[in-house]
Amino acid sequence: MTSYDFASDNTAPAAPEAMEALARFNTGFTAGYGNDTVTAQAADKVRELLDADADVRFVPSGTAANSVALAALCRPFEAVLCHEHAHILTDEAGAPGFFGHGLGLIGLTGPSAKVDPTALDAALAVEDDSHAQSPAALSLTNATEYGGVYRAEEVARLTNAAKAKGLSVHVDGARLANAAAAGFDPKALKNLGVDIAVVGGTKGGMPLSEAVVLFDKTLSRRFDARLKQAGQLPSKGRFLTAPWIGMLETNAWLERARHANAMAARLAEQMPFEITHPVHINTVFVLMDAAARQRLIQAGWATSRFSDGSTRFMCSWATTPELVEELVASLKSIA
Amino acid sequence: MTSYDFASDNTAPAAPEAMEALARFNTGFTAGYGNDTVTAQAADKVRELLDADADVRFVPSGTAANSVALAALCRPFEAVLCHEHAHILTDEAGAPGFFGHGLGLIGLTGPSAKVDPTALDAALAVEDDSHAQSPAALSLTNATEYGGVYRAEEVARLTNAAKAKGLSVHVDGARLANAAAAGFDPKALKNLGVDIAVVGGTKGGMPLSEAVVLFDKTLSRRFDARLKQAGQLPSKGRFLTAPWIGMLETNAWLERARHANAMAARLAEQMPFEITHPVHINTVFVLMDAAARQRLIQAGWATSRFSDGSTRFMCSWATTPELVEELVASLKSIA
Amino acid sequence: MTSYDFASDNTAPAAPEAMEALARFNTGFTAGYGNDTVTAQAADKVRELLDADADVRFVPSGTAANSVALAALCRPFEAVLCHEHAHILTDEAGAPGFFGHGLGLIGLTGPSAKVDPTALDAALAVEDDSHAQSPAALSLTNATEYGGVYRAEEVARLTNAAKAKGLSVHVDGARLANAAAAGFDPKALKNLGVDIAVVGGTKGGMPLSEAVVLFDKTLSRRFDARLKQAGQLPSKGRFLTAPWIGMLETNAWLERARHANAMAARLAEQMPFEITHPVHINTVFVLMDAAARQRLIQAGWATSRFSDGSTRFMCSWATTPELVEELVASLKSIA
Amino acid sequence: MTSYDFASDNTAPAAPEAMEALARFNTGFTAGYGNDTVTAQAADKVRELLDADADVRFVPSGTAANSVALAALCRPFEAVLCHEHAHILTDEAGAPGFFGHGLGLIGLTGPSAKVDPTALDAALAVEDDSHAQSPAALSLTNATEYGGVYRAEEVARLTNAAKAKGLSVHVDGARLANAAAAGFDPKALKNLGVDIAVVGGTKGGMPLSEAVVLFDKTLSRRFDARLKQAGQLPSKGRFLTAPWIGMLETNAWLERARHANAMAARLAEQMPFEITHPVHINTVFVLMDAAARQRLIQAGWATSRFSDGSTRFMCSWATTPELVEELVASLKSIA
Repeated sequence: MTSYDFASDNTAPAAPEAMEALARFNTGFTAGYGNDTVTAQAADKVRELLDADADVRFVPSGTAANSVALAALCRPFEAVLCHEHAHILTDEAGAPGFFGHGLGLIGLTGPSAKVDPTALDAALAVEDDSHAQSPAALSLTNATEYGGVYRAEEVARLTNAAKAKGLSVHVDGARLANAAAAGFDPKALKNLGVDIAVVGGTKGGMPLSEAVVLFDKTLSRRFDARLKQAGQLPSKGRFLTAPWIGMLETNAWLERARHANAMAARLAEQMPFEITHPVHINTVFVLMDAAARQRLIQAGWATSRFSDGSTRFMCSWATTPELVEELVASLKSIA
Repeated sequence: MTSYDFASDNTAPAAPEAMEALARFNTGFTAGYGNDTVTAQAADKVRELLDADADVRFVPSGTAANSVALAALCRPFEAVLCHEHAHILTDEAGAPGFFGHGLGLIGLTGPSAKVDPTALDAALAVEDDSHAQSPAALSLTNATEYGGVYRAEEVARLTNAAKAKGLSVHVDGARLANAAAAGFDPKALKNLGVDIAVVGGTKGGMPLSEAVVLFDKTLSRRFDARLKQAGQLPSKGRFLTAPWIGMLETNAWLERARHANAMAARLAEQMPFEITHPVHINTVFVLMDAAARQRLIQAGWATSRFSDGSTRFMCSWATTPELVEELVASLKSIA
Repeated sequence: MTSYDFASDNTAPAAPEAMEALARFNTGFTAGYGNDTVTAQAADKVRELLDADADVRFVPSGTAANSVALAALCRPFEAVLCHEHAHILTDEAGAPGFFGHGLGLIGLTGPSAKVDPTALDAALAVEDDSHAQSPAALSLTNATEYGGVYRAEEVARLTNAAKAKGLSVHVDGARLANAAAAGFDPKALKNLGVDIAVVGGTKGGMPLSEAVVLFDKTLSRRFDARLKQAGQLPSKGRFLTAPWIGMLETNAWLERARHANAMAARLAEQMPFEITHPVHINTVFVLMDAAARQRLIQAGWATSRFSDGSTRFMCSWATTPELVEELVASLKSIA
Repeated sequence: MTSYDFASDNTAPAAPEAMEALARFNTGFTAGYGNDTVTAQAADKVRELLDADADVRFVPSGTAANSVALAALCRPFEAVLCHEHAHILTDEAGAPGFFGHGLGLIGLTGPSAKVDPTALDAALAVEDDSHAQSPAALSLTNATEYGGVYRAEEVARLTNAAKAKGLSVHVDGARLANAAAAGFDPKALKNLGVDIAVVGGTKGGMPLSEAVVLFDKTLSRRFDARLKQAGQLPSKGRFLTAPWIGMLETNAWLERARHANAMAARLAEQMPFEITHPVHINTVFVLMDAAARQRLIQAGWATSRFSDGSTRFMCSWATTPELVEELVASLKSIA
């Protein structure tokens, strides 16, 4: 039988704080389509987390959260600058182009999926050409798909360059909690020129929910209609939003991510294979040859092989030290 | 304070059977993106409900469920025949056109939002014209937006006509449970020429989940990629699907709908305003003039005014006899 | 054999002034994609015609010209207000929804396809609703699909109301030349709050070319990329634009339309069938019963039956008095 | 003043045979929207050219011709395999994604923009993954963007591999005439598993017209509605199609391309810069350093720099030996 324990952070169950709030708010009749008081409270909590006067919406899908955001920033004949390993470029089955009616994605280089400022500058220096999709937005992921964490000044360096050229900025924060646990202050986002950020709930321990944060409130006009048309405005909003209350009022959003990061650190310390990316968050990337990967599969561990050739092990809020030890033992026998 | 008790069936909390299953299956690590065993069990339960060898997927949004289905049946330069009061035409902010890249919707007449066979025949008799979007699919809602319930032979009459012209058939079953409680056997669907049906979970008492049932399994190829691209393939599938297990293994899916229907019948019996559509399911439509509607609002009851001018009161699994009596008393004081 | 002489104004050949210019400018090498000097001259001529400091582009398709314009003014979850008989709503196979990724069209009433100000006001008074596509643009056709001609003050009445609500304005001027010949001064457009107008070339005697006039020049940014992506930026631009020079420098654009209008007046004077719309431009709409239409078809005249039940006869720059007499004789024998 | 003589083959005027036919068929009234007899004749001529019982449509834009074809073969959550230097991938401002609602393009390697069979096999061997756009079509360009010409057996090698995996096949034949003049028999296409081919008119000397050839006639159903919705069904069809009659009945389509190829050969023979791709058709690619390119621009020659770093000189039907000599002299002075 295959174990999904280290396959991803979305293979974990929901955290107790999220489930408790789901049950707690499952009472009485409320308004539909995000107009309920539970959703209003959750939005307040997210604003508090970010210390920002932003508009906040909640959607069930991270794919859609990011894609709707990009569609709000970029017209079909324009493009988004992002890292060449950004999830929106590599793993979304073309969702940004679907939601954005053909909008383009331009991949930039940089270590551990962090955009290299020089690469960005080069892309920004390209002149508009009516035969190509010129960039209208920059998308950054924090923490990145390869476990990189931007510091606030690194984000500022990139967004300042983008803003100077008239681009908008999107942040994919599917693992913002892990970045926060690694030292990135979410309260910094509001001063970094970000127009829309997606703050992740699902990977951090919620059933399925992502917050779309509109720092630029002029983008909010008719945003609910945008979400409704895109199938992202659930009638029973509280089931998306109660978990946010539970996770934020207890600080579990941050503490559960801190635990996940710690488990990855523990795994990294004992890892018998070569580690390919610095371990800052809940991911450990290693180099395994084909034979080793085959033995890993036979040992029953589901993992993902990434585009740079690395194999990823991922911890979550639900990863225990015992599970880490079990994996380490198995890896040592394979190595 | 406004009461949403009769505003819709999506203002209710989730039913105990759904919540119990959510908690029950919230344990251990599972595969992501609908490949988990909870989802597999839920799909089996839906197949059992329909007594059909169909492919089943689960999505968080009814808007998307129907729109993705229509996009699978209809190209952008084609159209869907549906009732002029069909939800897909009147209340989805253009979602079918968004998911279907501009596909058209052609509204047909008929009482209580049931498509009149003669109107369908007339639409099917229109010759193809390259300046218009010719129909490629028929969409039926059962139960309808005005509380109508198709009998199996009525569906067959319509789908046979459509099939004879080469159209595909979609059924919006957001309230199929209510139709089932009113006498429509869900097991009949498989023999009625339906290509894709959406079977509702949300309105019947689940947090947020709809089942997309592919009777025509040739449509299943790459359907997960279709869902992924459309932001409808959640990573943590079990949170969409556990409630289906809870609701179906206990028969609550049907019994909770039966209760909702009964509450509407109880309301209808005592209704002091003129009822505008036969009461078969959990909806009661009445005629209220502007002054009465104003008094209703002042009395604190949220309701919806529909395109035919009716005001709708809607019961749900959570509606109690006491609540009905309270509403009746209020309405009598207003009338 | 069927005669297409009165079927439409696009069944006519190209006017001599257009063909002469095509030949005249077919010499030497030029820049591609609308950057050639012929195109620049044509744009100057259009600006002169409209006495406006506007940006001007040329596209081969009227369908696309209008649809691209609407997509520039309206997002997918928004709608365009237009007459219920507007060409964009009735005859474009859903092109606005295709180019606009699902944008909606809301039909308004009014005589001879002119929008009734009261109907517009009612539509503008509808409050935003996230379940519906709220209007972002008003589209007017001048002259209309039923031969109506707006006076400048009538346009102003409508556009002022739209602008007051924050809507943008599009004018479909496929037959602006006919409207001009009927008394509407094209130079008035610049003061009427129009953001984008499409000025027709094809129906007026050019091979195939429409001018897209951007009065709001902020819309011009990356407009060529928009056109390129939409397949509307031909490499050999001069073949779209030389005819404009020929037709405008000789004043044929207006004079040929004046002739077409006069031929319709001549036809109307002798028309043995009831005329259903005032004859201001080159169209004559009449009431013919099924039997008469059958005899018309047998007599070999191709015509179109319109959504209000009228049968349309259409004159063009190429219609001669002799052809009119021939048709009249035939109609008299049929009546 | 800048000379566009060698900038592209679309900077040339239209060939006499095309212009003669334009004038010849510009007489009398005809049916609209491609239902005219001129268009029927042109379609016959194209079928004769290809010796194929195919359906043929004509559109004004090559961008749209290819994009509409791909949209007919590929759903939004699928992808097209093409060369990494294919025009549809590099120069169309994302048109395939716009017409195909987000469909993906996967670039393959190979010399002179010809797809390497091994690269294709590798792409075809990738298993379907619901997080990625899996290939549904193969697109080949003949002659290629870098002047490569596929032989029939090379096409067959590629299309057989694609067909074996269930993919459809599209051929971009914008310069099929040049390929034909270089030895590729257009009559071979019908036996090579091609579903849709676009046969170029514009680059070969027509004003603006491309033929869309549907070898798979099941794709023809409602194709006119597809074109209409996409703004590619001009009302005055004969102006797109008369040039085809003129060019094909005189064999100018082929002979003019032969001349263009010959001019490129003449240029190549005397080229003082290093030639980077074999010269088979009307293109000469060379290596020029930045300083030389600067001198070229100062000398007034417009050219394009390509993604592989080459500078392209392009001949056309209108290129004369004298022009070639003039360019050679200039290049020699620069080198």
